[in-house]
Amino acid sequence: MDKPYVAGIDIGGQTSKLGIVDARGTVISQTTIRTDTHSDVNLYIEDLSNALTRIADEVGGIDKLRGIGIGAPNGNYYTGTIENAVNLIWGGCNAIPFAKLMREKTGVPVALTNDANAAAVGEMTYGAARGMKNFIMITLGTGVGSGIVINGDVVYGHDGFAGELGHTTAVRNNGRLCNCGRVGCLETYTSAIGVARTAREWLEASDEPSVLREISETITSKDVYEAAAQGDALAIRVFEYTGKKLGESFAEFVAFSAPEAIVLFGGLARSGNLLLKPIEEHMNANLLPLWRNKIKIIFSQLKESDAAILGASALGWEIK
Amino acid sequence: MDKPYVAGIDIGGQTSKLGIVDARGTVISQTTIRTDTHSDVNLYIEDLSNALTRIADEVGGIDKLRGIGIGAPNGNYYTGTIENAVNLIWGGCNAIPFAKLMREKTGVPVALTNDANAAAVGEMTYGAARGMKNFIMITLGTGVGSGIVINGDVVYGHDGFAGELGHTTAVRNNGRLCNCGRVGCLETYTSAIGVARTAREWLEASDEPSVLREISETITSKDVYEAAAQGDALAIRVFEYTGKKLGESFAEFVAFSAPEAIVLFGGLARSGNLLLKPIEEHMNANLLPLWRNKIKIIFSQLKESDAAILGASALGWEIK
Repeated sequence: MDKPYVAGIDIGGQTSKLGIVDARGTVISQTTIRTDTHSDVNLYIEDLSNALTRIADEVGGIDKLRGIGIGAPNGNYYTGTIENAVNLIWGGCNAIPFAKLMREKTGVPVALTNDANAAAVGEMTYGAARGMKNFIMITLGTGVGSGIVINGDVVYGHDGFAGELGHTTAVRNNGRLCNCGRVGCLETYTSAIGVARTAREWLEASDEPSVLREISETITSKDVYEAAAQGDALAIRVFEYTGKKLGESFAEFVAFSAPEAIVLFGGLARSGNLLLKPIEEHMNANLLPLWRNKIKIIFSQLKESDAAILGASALGWEIK
Repeated sequence: MDKPYVAGIDIGGQTSKLGIVDARGTVISQTTIRTDTHSDVNLYIEDLSNALTRIADEVGGIDKLRGIGIGAPNGNYYTGTIENAVNLIWGGCNAIPFAKLMREKTGVPVALTNDANAAAVGEMTYGAARGMKNFIMITLGTGVGSGIVINGDVVYGHDGFAGELGHTTAVRNNGRLCNCGRVGCLETYTSAIGVARTAREWLEASDEPSVLREISETITSKDVYEAAAQGDALAIRVFEYTGKKLGESFAEFVAFSAPEAIVLFGGLARSGNLLLKPIEEHMNANLLPLWRNKIKIIFSQLKESDAAILGASALGWEIK
C-alpha cells in the first residue's frame, strides 16, 4: 500500500501539536491536544492516537502514514524513551517507552527525539538547511536548544542526549544560575527569559531612561525587541549583549564541528539584524583565522506555526 | 595480489617518522627522515618515497601495501592537501596536494589528515578506544590537538578542519595570548608549554618555596611533573590548575557530542592521577546531571614510540 505521508507530533508541557505532512513539507491537516490533563501516560497516548486517527482520516486513514516522528523534551532517539521530563505531567523520573507505546497503539513506525534535534531534521528536509551536510541548529525560545548535524546525520552521541549547547558555559565566573543546576549556561543569557532578565537587571542597575522602565516587572523579550526596534538605547544594548554571548559561544561550536552554517530558530530569531550583527561580529572575532567570515549565520525558513510539526514529521521519513 | 600491510607517516616540523604496520598494529619496520632539509616539497617527497620503499622491501615490497596513511600539520582529509602549515619548511601558504603527489610517486592509495585525527583513528583501530563509536581524543603535547569520533567516524566538518578543541576558550577575560592569534585558548593553559608557563608565572608571583625555583627560567612540564611527583606543593597545584582547565573544557565537549570517553594522549598524559583527579573533579562539577560520573577519562594505550606511526597507519585501512 502506498504511504505518501508522515505524521509529526510536537509534545510541549501544556499542549501537543500534531499534523500530517507530505513529502514537500506541506502540513495537510493538523490539530492540538492538551498534554497536561492526564497524569497517566497511557491515557495521554489514548488521546494522542485518537487525535492522530482523526487527522489521518483526512488523507485516507492511518495506513497512509509511512512513519510518525515525535519531538519531545528529553526524548532519546536510540531508545525511543522520554526520560526525566519534569515539565511533562506524566513524565516523572522513569524512562517512558513512548515510541514503543505509540507504535503499539497505532501500528505505524515511530521515531522520537528532542525538539531541537527534530527542528534540525526539519530544517534539513524542508527548510534553510536543505542540501547541507554539516550545520548546527540553535533554537532560541524559553530555553536554548540545539541540534547538530554532521555528515547529514543528527549527532545523538553515545547515549542519545548529545547536543545540549544551551548548557555550555557562556559566563565562567559569577554567571547566572540555570534551571539545570549549572552556573553561567548560555541559555540563562540568550533564551527569551535570559534577554528579559538582562533588561531587568540593567534597568535596576542604572537610572538610564528607557521605554522599558514602565513595564520593568513584567518585561518580556518581545518588549525588549519592540523597544530596540524603536531605537531605545538600553534595549539595543541588550540585543548587542545577547548577540555577543551567542557569537562567542558559536565560535566554540565551530571549533568542534566546522559547520557550513548555524541556523537560528525561535521567537528571538525574528529580531533580524538586531541580533545577527553582534553575533557575526563576536563569532568572527573569536574564530580561528581559517574560519573567519566563512561560517554562515542564517534564519530558519520554516513557517513558525508549522515548524514544530514539520520538524517532528521529518523524522518520520528517516525511519529505516 | 595480497596486500596485508599499511604504511603510516607522521610528518613533524623537524623529522618525519614512517613505518610498515600489520593488521594487529605491530610496527614491522620503521625509519625517520628529516623534514626540514628541503625547501621544495618535491624533493621532500622524493626522500620520503625512497625511505618508504626501503622499509617496504622488508615485507616484500611496496606492492604489499594496501594504503598509506599520513598525519600532517593542517592536513585536510577531504582534499588531501596540506594548507598554511607554517611549521613545515616546504609548507608555505598554498595548499600542497600532498596526498596526490605521494600517490603518484608510490602508486599506493593515500589518505591524509592532521596528527590528532590520525591519533584518534589509531586509538580506535589498535588502542584504548577499540570498540568505541563515540569518543574524543585529546593530544597534550607542545600544543593541544583533538580528534572527535562520532558514530565511528572522525569528524572532519564542512571543510576538513573540524576538531580544533585546543583553540576553544578556557579563559574568557584576560586570557593568555595564543600563537593562533586568539586569547585564552585551552592550549595556552594545558599544553606542555602552558604547564611550564603556569609554573613560571606562579613562581614569579610569590616567594613560596619550591624545588622548581632553581630552574625557573628553563622550566619544562617534565620538571613540573617530577617536582609534583616528589610532593612539591606548588607543582602539585600547577597540575590541579591544569586539570581544572581541562575538566571545565571537557564538560563543554561532552555537551556537544556526548562521548563514551575522552582519551588523553601525549607527554602530559603520563602524569597519571596528578592530572586525572582534577580533570574528573572539575568535569563532573560542570556536567549536566545526566552525564555526571558517567563519562570515562582514559589514557592512550598506544606505545608512545610507535603511536605517531600507528595513528597515521590506521588511516591506511580506511581507504575505500
